[in-house]
Amino acid sequence: MLRELRLALLTEPHLIKVHQSFMEPAYETITWQDDHLVILDQTQLPLREIYSDVNTIGQVWECIKNLKISGAPAVGIAAAYGLYLGVKDLESRNFTSFSVEIDRWIDYLISARPTAMNSTWALQRIKHTIFANKDKELEEIKEVILKTAKTIHAEDKRGGKNIGEHGSKLIKKDAKVLTHGNTGALATGAFGTAFSVILHAHEAEKNIHVWVNETRPLLQGARLTAWELEKTEIPYKLITDSTAGSLMNKGEVDIVLVGADRVTANGDLINRIGTYPLAVLAKENDIPFYVALPLSTVDPNTTSGSDIEIEERDAEEVTHFGNTPITPKKTDAFNPAFDLTPHEYITGFITEKGLIEPDFEENFSSLFDRS
Amino acid sequence: MLRELRLALLTEPHLIKVHQSFMEPAYETITWQDDHLVILDQTQLPLREIYSDVNTIGQVWECIKNLKISGAPAVGIAAAYGLYLGVKDLESRNFTSFSVEIDRWIDYLISARPTAMNSTWALQRIKHTIFANKDKELEEIKEVILKTAKTIHAEDKRGGKNIGEHGSKLIKKDAKVLTHGNTGALATGAFGTAFSVILHAHEAEKNIHVWVNETRPLLQGARLTAWELEKTEIPYKLITDSTAGSLMNKGEVDIVLVGADRVTANGDLINRIGTYPLAVLAKENDIPFYVALPLSTVDPNTTSGSDIEIEERDAEEVTHFGNTPITPKKTDAFNPAFDLTPHEYITGFITEKGLIEPDFEENFSSLFDRS
Repeated sequence: MLRELRLALLTEPHLIKVHQSFMEPAYETITWQDDHLVILDQTQLPLREIYSDVNTIGQVWECIKNLKISGAPAVGIAAAYGLYLGVKDLESRNFTSFSVEIDRWIDYLISARPTAMNSTWALQRIKHTIFANKDKELEEIKEVILKTAKTIHAEDKRGGKNIGEHGSKLIKKDAKVLTHGNTGALATGAFGTAFSVILHAHEAEKNIHVWVNETRPLLQGARLTAWELEKTEIPYKLITDSTAGSLMNKGEVDIVLVGADRVTANGDLINRIGTYPLAVLAKENDIPFYVALPLSTVDPNTTSGSDIEIEERDAEEVTHFGNTPITPKKTDAFNPAFDLTPHEYITGFITEKGLIEPDFEENFSSLFDRS
Repeated sequence: MLRELRLALLTEPHLIKVHQSFMEPAYETITWQDDHLVILDQTQLPLREIYSDVNTIGQVWECIKNLKISGAPAVGIAAAYGLYLGVKDLESRNFTSFSVEIDRWIDYLISARPTAMNSTWALQRIKHTIFANKDKELEEIKEVILKTAKTIHAEDKRGGKNIGEHGSKLIKKDAKVLTHGNTGALATGAFGTAFSVILHAHEAEKNIHVWVNETRPLLQGARLTAWELEKTEIPYKLITDSTAGSLMNKGEVDIVLVGADRVTANGDLINRIGTYPLAVLAKENDIPFYVALPLSTVDPNTTSGSDIEIEERDAEEVTHFGNTPITPKKTDAFNPAFDLTPHEYITGFITEKGLIEPDFEENFSSLFDRS
């Protein structure tokens, strides 16, 4: 389609409006170019659309830590490429010393944002592939790493499309959808998770309207989701996070759709701070609450959400707006990045393999046994 | 105490630390000086502590509309003085034409923030006093108006102290208190409503800790409540509004205390946006949820909260931070100033006359019959 679009632009430029759709993304958050990554710097959006070259594993770590790359699936993809950047110029005497380096880099990459599942998942997958190829030459193993990173990236794109298709079936005509954080193409390989459901429902002409939680403190909703909705021309309005409750109570929300940073074996959800209150409010008002995610976000080895340590971030994210202080000088803030939503508040999980309903423990377990 | 403090400062300045307490406020949000109001401009806090002269009813309206004066009780007090400023130079031929002017100014003052009850209450109270004195000279009636405004102001100060004393009994030792919006001396004549309870519990050495919701979009918690807590040296931490839920779920909140903009005959609560989700989350986690308010905030003539129109404010309060845009250019926001918390989520009301528990309708009704 991109080729046709270019041809059309040459001939009839006034007829063509480039916009994001499930057919052809107008932007990509992560691209591999020859020997390095190019990322769309999320901290600069929506005011500036800046693409940056990322050449080293240290730069990948910094991008993840400082949220230039954010969203669990995007973090997983970046970490995968990051591992390749970390080892591509490495000279090891043998596989054993190479694998020691690999472990060191994996720990380092996960440490940038330890709560999100996808970097752990992606890096463990690469590690398995490395060991499956341990008898090959070092240079060949490095190529295997890059190839696996590209595969993870490509699978995530396909997965996002599948999530959107499965989830769209849950969206009724004229539905008012409420969402939190950013779960679009910016947060994933392409299309997104919860955002992909919104995108597919819109493309299916369901006449949806989206309520976007601004998502304090870092305003991923106000900055990123709003930016993606503008690109796709989906009707929406921004709200403060604490407006969502009264909208639900007034019958102005038909479904809540969120993404996930990690889901444990029993279906407990770790996601962007502010998710738990939405789930409680949805239940109280009999509104379905769905979580859209690639299965790489599921952590089948952790029993329940209470076993997960929640990342705490700098107080300044709350006490300052950019460099401008909001509060008195001495004010301290408690700033957890995520919260835990117990599984009993969740209506279902929308995955690339379809909808998963309760009993989650049983259904996840049979899915992971099969795969 | 002020006199003793001054004497002490002269003799032993290093021993004295001036801080806000229930004994002697270190700041006042509204002061009547000779022939005009002086207000502490809340929009400039906490970065600048600016006191402004307010000389006309138009300026009072503007201060209320633009939240230089905010908090239902403070708005009621300002409106009362505002009415006097509106009529003090008025020359009417007779009482009838004077009372037409009074009605016009009352409507005008209420229009600045129609949802909050206290301006309606204060202005109706003054109107009754005017009619009780209708046979007096116009200049005498004007003095009655000023005197009534001063009485309303003085009663609110006393009321705040009483609310604090009654409420403090509900606070256990080492309690973790969660609050929303600003309900301190800034929002009232003095001491505050929910904040007065916190203040009295702190002065009673209950070793409390306060979680302060930042209270988007205008950050009354981050700017004003944090400023008042700094002045009183009460231990606290700031959180984003959507962090409150997970704190409750982790057992980190023992009681939720909020103020009120209006309470209807059945106990339904209209308060700062974000109150309803807190009430639902408190109920879900078995945490008591109390509303502190002077009885002037109760509207016994309105049956239930669904009869109240909620003020909608400019989208720019959400899409911008000061003059800096947060969102894409075209982003629109839905920005209600208040939400409705149905009475069934409320554990009790802390008033200047004591605690009111369910059945609220019955208990309010008997209270208003008596008074």
